[in-house]
Amino acid sequence: MSRRPMVRPGGRSARVQESVHAAVRELEAELGRDALTVPLVAQRAGVTPSTIYRRWGDLHELLSDVAVARLRPDAEPADHGDLRSDLTAWTEQFLEEMSSPAGRAYVRDALLGDPDGGNAGQCSAYAADQVAVVLARASARGEIAPGVEAVMDRVVAPLMYRILFRPAGLDTAYARRLVTGLLRSPGEE
Amino acid sequence: MSRRPMVRPGGRSARVQESVHAAVRELEAELGRDALTVPLVAQRAGVTPSTIYRRWGDLHELLSDVAVARLRPDAEPADHGDLRSDLTAWTEQFLEEMSSPAGRAYVRDALLGDPDGGNAGQCSAYAADQVAVVLARASARGEIAPGVEAVMDRVVAPLMYRILFRPAGLDTAYARRLVTGLLRSPGEE
Repeated sequence: MSRRPMVRPGGRSARVQESVHAAVRELEAELGRDALTVPLVAQRAGVTPSTIYRRWGDLHELLSDVAVARLRPDAEPADHGDLRSDLTAWTEQFLEEMSSPAGRAYVRDALLGDPDGGNAGQCSAYAADQVAVVLARASARGEIAPGVEAVMDRVVAPLMYRILFRPAGLDTAYARRLVTGLLRSPGEE
Repeated sequence: MSRRPMVRPGGRSARVQESVHAAVRELEAELGRDALTVPLVAQRAGVTPSTIYRRWGDLHELLSDVAVARLRPDAEPADHGDLRSDLTAWTEQFLEEMSSPAGRAYVRDALLGDPDGGNAGQCSAYAADQVAVVLARASARGEIAPGVEAVMDRVVAPLMYRILFRPAGLDTAYARRLVTGLLRSPGEE
């Protein structure tokens, strides 16, 4: 998202973003995503198409922004009292959200309308931040915890790779095996 | 690619595919991918636009097919005499190819124009087939080898995840660490 200007909360830029994002969400629900066009979104949002082209470049980049906003976690991972429970619960929730039809669509949108890679990086940062909360909590309890990047490599990456490229056999049992394998042999990371 | 008919080698269908794929490659080299349109590709390939729409649906699906064809490995992994050397060499080559600007573009194209997931699955199958050759060779030597899916989870998935979502720090040393970590603790897979 580096190409886009910083948004001042409450400023016009922020109001435009909110109305345009809302228009995309509404029209997608009403008409389906394939019916979305920049002029349609602009009309619903009460802005000119050129406002959208100037700020987002094209429909793919706008959909990518909306997808990233939808992929932002709305709460910290639940505290179940120990690392294995917390990481297992977070992983199962991550799989459920990302492998749902909506989740797959958002991830694809985030990746594909993303010339500078900022949106994909933001998706990954959301997951890493959630993982960091789980690991910091474990360390605070005195548990031995792997590093964030180890969890990204051993749990998050295999799940996202299979969601995108290799969906067969992607289930809760698989997600749990990834967590178990990491905690048994965290490796050198 | 399940939506598309089987292609009889030497048949008209195969000739159309070859000429259309060739037209995409030529025009992409001459004009750049953003200049590609279905009418332009059809003209160069000597077919009607409707032939392309009928067979591929739209430009994204055509580019996805071309990308998958370009991602097909053209040779078996080299035999360096032992599992660690073979897997390290294959992994370094995979990273180099997939993280190159062209490789990233092909992977994105393969994912983007892929309504049924067949092309993404084919990309993953290419990698899994290469890995299977390396592992079968190791077993034939009497070496203890991990399973194909373990290599996909521990080596291929982290590389592709970082290429797509988290490119910082993606280098040969990282790729080697993935191989070392897998061979040290293959886990339960």
